[in-house]
Amino acid sequence: MKGNSLIIQSGGPTCVINSSLYGIIKEAKKHPNNIEGIFGALNGIEGLLNNEIIDLRKENEQELIYLLNTPGAVLGTGRHKLNNDYNNEEYNKILSQCEKYNIRYIYIIGGNDSMDTGNKLYQFFTLKHYDCKVIGVPKTIDNDLVNTDHTPGYGSALKYIANTFQEIENDICCYQNGKVTIVEVMGRDAGWLTAGSKLSSINGNGPDLIYLPECPFDIEDFLMKVKNIYEQKHYVLIAISEGIRNKDGQYIHTLINSGNQTTDSFGHINLGGAASVLANIIQSKFNFPVRSIELSLPQRCASHISSLTDIEEAQEVGKHAVIKSLNKDINGSMINITRAQHNDYIIGYQWVSLSSVANKVKTFPKEWIVNNCDIDRGFINYALPLIQENNIIYQENGLPRYAKLKKEKVIL
Amino acid sequence: MKGNSLIIQSGGPTCVINSSLYGIIKEAKKHPNNIEGIFGALNGIEGLLNNEIIDLRKENEQELIYLLNTPGAVLGTGRHKLNNDYNNEEYNKILSQCEKYNIRYIYIIGGNDSMDTGNKLYQFFTLKHYDCKVIGVPKTIDNDLVNTDHTPGYGSALKYIANTFQEIENDICCYQNGKVTIVEVMGRDAGWLTAGSKLSSINGNGPDLIYLPECPFDIEDFLMKVKNIYEQKHYVLIAISEGIRNKDGQYIHTLINSGNQTTDSFGHINLGGAASVLANIIQSKFNFPVRSIELSLPQRCASHISSLTDIEEAQEVGKHAVIKSLNKDINGSMINITRAQHNDYIIGYQWVSLSSVANKVKTFPKEWIVNNCDIDRGFINYALPLIQENNIIYQENGLPRYAKLKKEKVIL
Repeated sequence: MKGNSLIIQSGGPTCVINSSLYGIIKEAKKHPNNIEGIFGALNGIEGLLNNEIIDLRKENEQELIYLLNTPGAVLGTGRHKLNNDYNNEEYNKILSQCEKYNIRYIYIIGGNDSMDTGNKLYQFFTLKHYDCKVIGVPKTIDNDLVNTDHTPGYGSALKYIANTFQEIENDICCYQNGKVTIVEVMGRDAGWLTAGSKLSSINGNGPDLIYLPECPFDIEDFLMKVKNIYEQKHYVLIAISEGIRNKDGQYIHTLINSGNQTTDSFGHINLGGAASVLANIIQSKFNFPVRSIELSLPQRCASHISSLTDIEEAQEVGKHAVIKSLNKDINGSMINITRAQHNDYIIGYQWVSLSSVANKVKTFPKEWIVNNCDIDRGFINYALPLIQENNIIYQENGLPRYAKLKKEKVIL
Repeated sequence: MKGNSLIIQSGGPTCVINSSLYGIIKEAKKHPNNIEGIFGALNGIEGLLNNEIIDLRKENEQELIYLLNTPGAVLGTGRHKLNNDYNNEEYNKILSQCEKYNIRYIYIIGGNDSMDTGNKLYQFFTLKHYDCKVIGVPKTIDNDLVNTDHTPGYGSALKYIANTFQEIENDICCYQNGKVTIVEVMGRDAGWLTAGSKLSSINGNGPDLIYLPECPFDIEDFLMKVKNIYEQKHYVLIAISEGIRNKDGQYIHTLINSGNQTTDSFGHINLGGAASVLANIIQSKFNFPVRSIELSLPQRCASHISSLTDIEEAQEVGKHAVIKSLNKDINGSMINITRAQHNDYIIGYQWVSLSSVANKVKTFPKEWIVNNCDIDRGFINYALPLIQENNIIYQENGLPRYAKLKKEKVIL
């Protein structure tokens, strides 16, 4: 099929979502007999609906290379959720827009919500006999996509987290009377990122306690452990997921701080703050010096410390999305990463159906959680290859040089 | 004078306090006719009082090189303040300990409090006719020492801050309806670090608003500016110092949040949280989506992004401390950094009296503050040379390899 391609970035940004974009563009340019226009939708699927579509062939080659160390989503991202009913007005608009722009290849870079969007597009196009390949390109720092060994974006977040924990440990251990330091890591439902703090134990001591959302958080047991450790070594380093919950499934933050509970503009409870709540409890109960730290956005945008392995894999999933979309048999699929059962780190790129990935969450394996507050060596073996090699940082004036795209609109 | 040397690390750690330690050790080894023992006091001056003194000549050479990318203070740090009365018991203990260990050279790596300690030791030794050189080696991320162009530690903190602001901006700008993002930077009394956020404007847009403690913070004016900017561009990036105060000198955090005001174990008001307080006000007043981020400890320990210029200068001040202490005329002095008035960045190492530095604070120049909420180009010209060149990171397993010292106690 000959026609134009449309690339969509969707969901939370990562350090390498733009590397996948680069991988797609670079490969697409090699197939001009199939892929004519290489278009980008601004701010997710909404860009398609609103004619906010740019021509990526017009971008300067060097600027595109800078995408490899540019954090954030350069096309802009969105969280628009498509209706479950294919009779909904919106789908007709999508179809007419795709016809108008002659879109025959759609590449969606995103997480499980985005794969749901991709799956709906695929199902709808099939229903309407509209010939368009829809291919998902996995992306999330959370590593919570099923049917893939890991997700691009996770390795760089891990590298940031592991480095930061090692640095924080070295900072807090140098006082005679140090602090109980609680570091809050992203992850509402899956502890993959928080577990990454354990990597700091390879060349350092690592956190004393690590709590993931996969295990009920027992505050009494936690306080007892903190007290014992502090009395022994005069500082404690603790990693917690933002999403830790008690045995009744209530978020620790909302449970304790219910008077100050806030919600976002969509009514979702604002997480974050669990570390600060726990720090206050420790201080008032034991009068130990405490500090809470939220790693916050740098977890997903600290591109200066991206893993080169992650950057390369993010490009590869983009490249394979293009290659496999040109194979007639593949549609409604997400490119996944498979790993050979082998001591060396050998991976391959295959595909799975978007429907098998959409809206599902891969939680952290229970067998890698030790006594509810530590992480097993098995995880280290799994995760360590993902953070290898340092990003080649493009700089000007000692500061990162990010891609500056012209973003010329497609004019029909 | 022939005798032993004692190195002390004091005050808050930085990324390069251990580089100064390395610079001292390396240079001291070149002068065995003057400097016999190269000792380190554990946890500041208290190590001397408590016989917690290690023999740095026994450390492995390669491990010492790893000091160049090891954050925290490997000797341990302290905040012990010496008495103002030289008749105090403590001083006799210090003298007897120095005599016992035959300490003839003391190098104190620290900030203005530590220079006060150094100055008191120098004054006391002079009073007692005890022949011992006391030399200060400047160190602080805060850059608030007088009589020096800048302080080792500042450049690396700046580099972290500038990179992080650039990354955060790229993350938050990619949503159609972004957040008002308030980033809180260290600095109670001086805005040097917060001003560093402006460096992110060189290759990016930089923060929309920057507030330092040097200017009274007007909350009504702030809210009006935030509203205008958000309505124009749908996200706002704000940098604030933790120490911003209103025109009456009250900390914004304590003023607004007085019900929850907490103090540390010494009764100091816990700062931090100003960003969170301001974010809550913006959300409740305008219902804009908001996020507050405290950069917290990584500002002073993110050694993976240290400035090589800073590492080298930190070594040099250590080296010059040794060289100049062997010059009979210099005592009770701190090594300082001077800069030639020249387009190129050319610096020299001189010295000033400890008494001229002790307990003083160099605030951010008013002439570089624009309209209370922006930073002048003059600061960029001043600061940019300090963040140049990237740290050569020593790694194992893709993670930093820090120095592991044996810390063998000196046995007399």
